[in-house]
Amino acid sequence: MELLRIKKLQDAMKGKANYAIVSVGPNFYYLTGYLPLESPDRAFFLVVPDEGEPFVLAPELYSFELEKLELEKVFYKDGEDPYQKLSSLIKGGVILLDDGMSFRQVLRVQTSVEARAYGLLSTVINELRVEKDESELELITKAAKIADRSFEKVASEVYPGLREDELAEIINEYLAYYGAEGLAFKTIVASGPNSAEPHHTVSDRKIKKGDVVILDFGARYKGYVSDITRTLLVGNADLKFIEIYETVKKAQAAAAKTVKPGVSASEVDSAAREVISSKGYGENFIHRTGHGIGLEVHEEPFLDPSNKLKLKDGMTFTIEPGIYIKGKYGVRIEDDYVLKEKAVRLTNSTRNLLTI
Amino acid sequence: MELLRIKKLQDAMKGKANYAIVSVGPNFYYLTGYLPLESPDRAFFLVVPDEGEPFVLAPELYSFELEKLELEKVFYKDGEDPYQKLSSLIKGGVILLDDGMSFRQVLRVQTSVEARAYGLLSTVINELRVEKDESELELITKAAKIADRSFEKVASEVYPGLREDELAEIINEYLAYYGAEGLAFKTIVASGPNSAEPHHTVSDRKIKKGDVVILDFGARYKGYVSDITRTLLVGNADLKFIEIYETVKKAQAAAAKTVKPGVSASEVDSAAREVISSKGYGENFIHRTGHGIGLEVHEEPFLDPSNKLKLKDGMTFTIEPGIYIKGKYGVRIEDDYVLKEKAVRLTNSTRNLLTI
Repeated sequence: MELLRIKKLQDAMKGKANYAIVSVGPNFYYLTGYLPLESPDRAFFLVVPDEGEPFVLAPELYSFELEKLELEKVFYKDGEDPYQKLSSLIKGGVILLDDGMSFRQVLRVQTSVEARAYGLLSTVINELRVEKDESELELITKAAKIADRSFEKVASEVYPGLREDELAEIINEYLAYYGAEGLAFKTIVASGPNSAEPHHTVSDRKIKKGDVVILDFGARYKGYVSDITRTLLVGNADLKFIEIYETVKKAQAAAAKTVKPGVSASEVDSAAREVISSKGYGENFIHRTGHGIGLEVHEEPFLDPSNKLKLKDGMTFTIEPGIYIKGKYGVRIEDDYVLKEKAVRLTNSTRNLLTI
Repeated sequence: MELLRIKKLQDAMKGKANYAIVSVGPNFYYLTGYLPLESPDRAFFLVVPDEGEPFVLAPELYSFELEKLELEKVFYKDGEDPYQKLSSLIKGGVILLDDGMSFRQVLRVQTSVEARAYGLLSTVINELRVEKDESELELITKAAKIADRSFEKVASEVYPGLREDELAEIINEYLAYYGAEGLAFKTIVASGPNSAEPHHTVSDRKIKKGDVVILDFGARYKGYVSDITRTLLVGNADLKFIEIYETVKKAQAAAAKTVKPGVSASEVDSAAREVISSKGYGENFIHRTGHGIGLEVHEEPFLDPSNKLKLKDGMTFTIEPGIYIKGKYGVRIEDDYVLKEKAVRLTNSTRNLLTI
């Protein structure tokens, strides 16, 4: 399976690049099914030539651990120069470097290896990664189910007096209970005025009667993630809040309806933005409409105003419009979708306003 | 305090570089005392000119959160090009980029901003970071104490039948109980033949009578880390094992004794290596003797055979020689030290062989 992906990468590289140097991270895992717990100061690369044998360049102290990986290996000892080894093994041409490779490593590669030009690995590998295969969809769907189940439980455990960080801990425990191997990202619980801050994570603030509470979390399952947001109300809603809530809900539905193969990412963003602007809240929607999910929580397709990428079947992404009234409250509703002719929801928790 | 560090960086940049672009990571935290939970796909930089006002370039959705940071801020919206903003704000010269900046961001900076040359931020900032001030030493000392206390408790909870991953969980719980805000790195419990693999983390293997068990873990406290390793024996020791254990212990002591201001990192490595080689285990010591600790678990000074860096007062580092007999067992003893005229131990758990 994984070696098949390396083969596909080699096919995609033909005529574009001679080597890809993949550092430890999601691309490494995507291609090998393996992710070492590495130390970022040590060189640890998968090197894929456009034809011929790929190999892993790794510190010798990983030699036992790497025995299970069916790839050629080249080891170096602490104190030896791995970049010299690299330069003796690859010869020139166009070299793609992993988008996530650190500048520390980029410079070492660029000063050691002769090359005609350097490019981003994403320019070739993203085409492969962005269209999820059935095995990947299964894992993302499972991660989405874990998030749904956790939300269902958590929604009934919110009460005035509970602290944001305590509620986040409850969410994290449910995610683990339902099978998550970890969090997709640090769980967000934003209550009262904190909910107006889209990048608030958690604090020790106690939830009060009358608060709006935004929960934003996701599960990681066998490397793949989900990402869901729901907005709750503790107490009674005023009419303005209900209008805002319904506007966000409609914006999400409008964006989802726009999704079709061939439609651009920016068109989906526009669909949500238009609903929100038409109600006069355009300035209060201060982030993009969504982002791809997979091995990373934020990956292509980014649903933002300037992304011309055309959507295709097999893409997985969030749609998560929001309206934020500074100092008061915010509303965000986020679900995960896969494109299969149309947008099919992967998270299925109710989007109706829950009041507690 | 933190703005003072920016001032020191500016002083160190004079005559060497015109701008430093710091991405989210340890350098960002070191300079600002703040670490956003960022999405690596969005530009989020601290920009420090060699003279004049530093500023933070950040996504607009962080604007509330950044209010507490006493620095100039420049915001951009999702869909806007932050690199265009950057290019209008900084003009040419020599630009230092954060060693941890991703190639994705490096390329965007390099194609947007006019510069005469690019260099690594570490060439200037490491001089500052490597000599810890009193406030940093306090935090590292506290992190070391948390590791010591946890080891003391854990040592008496190892028994045949316990799984490696269960023991790791016990260690993690003690670290949290004694005040760690998180783990310095994923806790290592390597039992039986796994102990011969220096980069084994944990498995579901059950500890057996006769096993050697290596515990390697650390606490994170207010951003700073500790890192300790102890090797236990479950059952009775044979003479060869005791010889190996004592050799590693002597190697650590010899390395620590070599530490003085002005001595190079490689000399400390040699001191450990000589003791081990003299007993015929040179080939079984397959990693460096130690590494700096601070905001990162692995940072300068790296105590490896090729590092000519001269040690100075205020440096903090591990000394952790090891001997690994493939398929059988391994021994590693690791402590944290600060250089104050000589090597002063920060972790103080017993280094005598504990048999259980």
